[in-house]
Amino acid sequence: MTLRALVVGAAAGGGLPQWNCNGPNSARFWRGRSESGNGLAAATQSSLAVSADGASWAVLNASPDIRAQIMALPQLQPRDPASFGLRDTPISAVLLTNGDIDHVAGLLTMREKQRYNLFMTAGIAEVLDANPIFEAVDRDLVPRRTVALDAPFELIPGIEATLFAVPGKVPLYMEGETVDTDLVGEQTVGVRLSAGGRTIYYVPGCAAMPDWLADRLRGAELVFFDGTVFHDDEMIREGVGQKTGKRMGHMAMAGPEGSMAAFEGLGVKRKIYVHINNTNPVWRPDSDERRIVGEAGWEVAHDGMEVVL
Amino acid sequence: MTLRALVVGAAAGGGLPQWNCNGPNSARFWRGRSESGNGLAAATQSSLAVSADGASWAVLNASPDIRAQIMALPQLQPRDPASFGLRDTPISAVLLTNGDIDHVAGLLTMREKQRYNLFMTAGIAEVLDANPIFEAVDRDLVPRRTVALDAPFELIPGIEATLFAVPGKVPLYMEGETVDTDLVGEQTVGVRLSAGGRTIYYVPGCAAMPDWLADRLRGAELVFFDGTVFHDDEMIREGVGQKTGKRMGHMAMAGPEGSMAAFEGLGVKRKIYVHINNTNPVWRPDSDERRIVGEAGWEVAHDGMEVVL
Repeated sequence: MTLRALVVGAAAGGGLPQWNCNGPNSARFWRGRSESGNGLAAATQSSLAVSADGASWAVLNASPDIRAQIMALPQLQPRDPASFGLRDTPISAVLLTNGDIDHVAGLLTMREKQRYNLFMTAGIAEVLDANPIFEAVDRDLVPRRTVALDAPFELIPGIEATLFAVPGKVPLYMEGETVDTDLVGEQTVGVRLSAGGRTIYYVPGCAAMPDWLADRLRGAELVFFDGTVFHDDEMIREGVGQKTGKRMGHMAMAGPEGSMAAFEGLGVKRKIYVHINNTNPVWRPDSDERRIVGEAGWEVAHDGMEVVL
Repeated sequence: MTLRALVVGAAAGGGLPQWNCNGPNSARFWRGRSESGNGLAAATQSSLAVSADGASWAVLNASPDIRAQIMALPQLQPRDPASFGLRDTPISAVLLTNGDIDHVAGLLTMREKQRYNLFMTAGIAEVLDANPIFEAVDRDLVPRRTVALDAPFELIPGIEATLFAVPGKVPLYMEGETVDTDLVGEQTVGVRLSAGGRTIYYVPGCAAMPDWLADRLRGAELVFFDGTVFHDDEMIREGVGQKTGKRMGHMAMAGPEGSMAAFEGLGVKRKIYVHINNTNPVWRPDSDERRIVGEAGWEVAHDGMEVVL
């Protein structure tokens, strides 16, 4: 028994390039420029797939790009019709870690009379329940299974998952007048995945690293972690937004409050940034920031990256 | 002044290939087979863009594939940042012809603090309003402009649009116990587009062709029309579903009640099928059905097809 993780989409909401962005990363892909972004690889929105046997997969977060992601990844495509029939998918479960658009909109594609299990906290289920458009995903075929925090459950055969609260906020479209970005509850969760004694942590959104969370991740074999922005004020510096990373519910990579500092001394064996915003300079292989995260022991995910434990 | 139409996505909901489909068209794209589907071109979900000047575009229906569509179509990409700034799109309006997922889910991508006009009937606006997730599209920047049937309005500079009711049904996720597939009202509309004396009709969903609709289209210069299924019972024949085209709100191409028969004698100069389901045999260039629609004077749209009047 192995534990496989496949980066389905490495980018944060919007993807790389983002449809309306002329920032230094996205602009490389537009008119008159190379389709490959002059050496920069395009990236789809945030999702990770895991499998114990390489045959049945769970998708963690259903990104708006899921149709393009499935077309790019043979692991997630329908199998031989002679054995598997006219409707098929190797995706037997979807798990949501928050209700953000980049993590739930793909459910609108995953309809068409297909059975799979859909797992989330009751808090995230409330968000879906409030939107009748998600009724297109037939509840008779795709039951919405709510799971409690810190209670292990079988995600797919061979993989046990446990959800745990991390600091975060409600989805953008649910924000009120004031926003608590250090909310700890069912709205934003991390996932512990284990199979055959191997363990992966997946935390694509995290606004801060309190001691209790650091203690949970200490000594882990592999952590996929929130790499939205390098600098907390990156969107403002680049002139493409007014919000800090913190305001969006994401701790930056750099700085005394950042993830590089937070993981120092935790003894995590392998650390991979995911959910990387299109403004983040680490996308550029030749950037100082990419060198800095590398020197701190971090890898930067890319679409199609596969890790086998 | 010209009137340009660009087929952004030629396929119906699900696209070609569809994520979980092993039908004869979709299966050509999956594992161990050619990425081009062995001669079959992939197609994204239903959308048409129109422009009078080739610079400012209106997108008719926002498909779930819109991010991939923009990456494939330079016409819809951000322009030179030196002139247009760090946030830009040539898309200055979106118009919805119904509330189906394949026509509205792309709005969830078209957020990120971008200004454009969003036009629809009050009936379709009710569907969006009932789903808080669409609040991610900031109403201050993207006002939801409701337009009355049969009342001309300026869609983008140089293009006048008029919405008109066609037989159809409510979106799948709003269906009750019984479904009226010949509903005529604000839930499903066609669009008349005109610029500089040239006119295009766009009718991607239509359940029947009553005389009053035939009279409206008679003698038209160009009609993009609902090409969902060739045979009304195509999904059942292929073993991938239980619904007829009619039950899904779409008249078939073939048969005495079909669109080929309905357009006979109407004197429409150019007829192009759009919103083509992945089960439809006309996708295959060498199929009998493709030959039959060609002999009846119809073209089959493909992604990126551009028509200039």
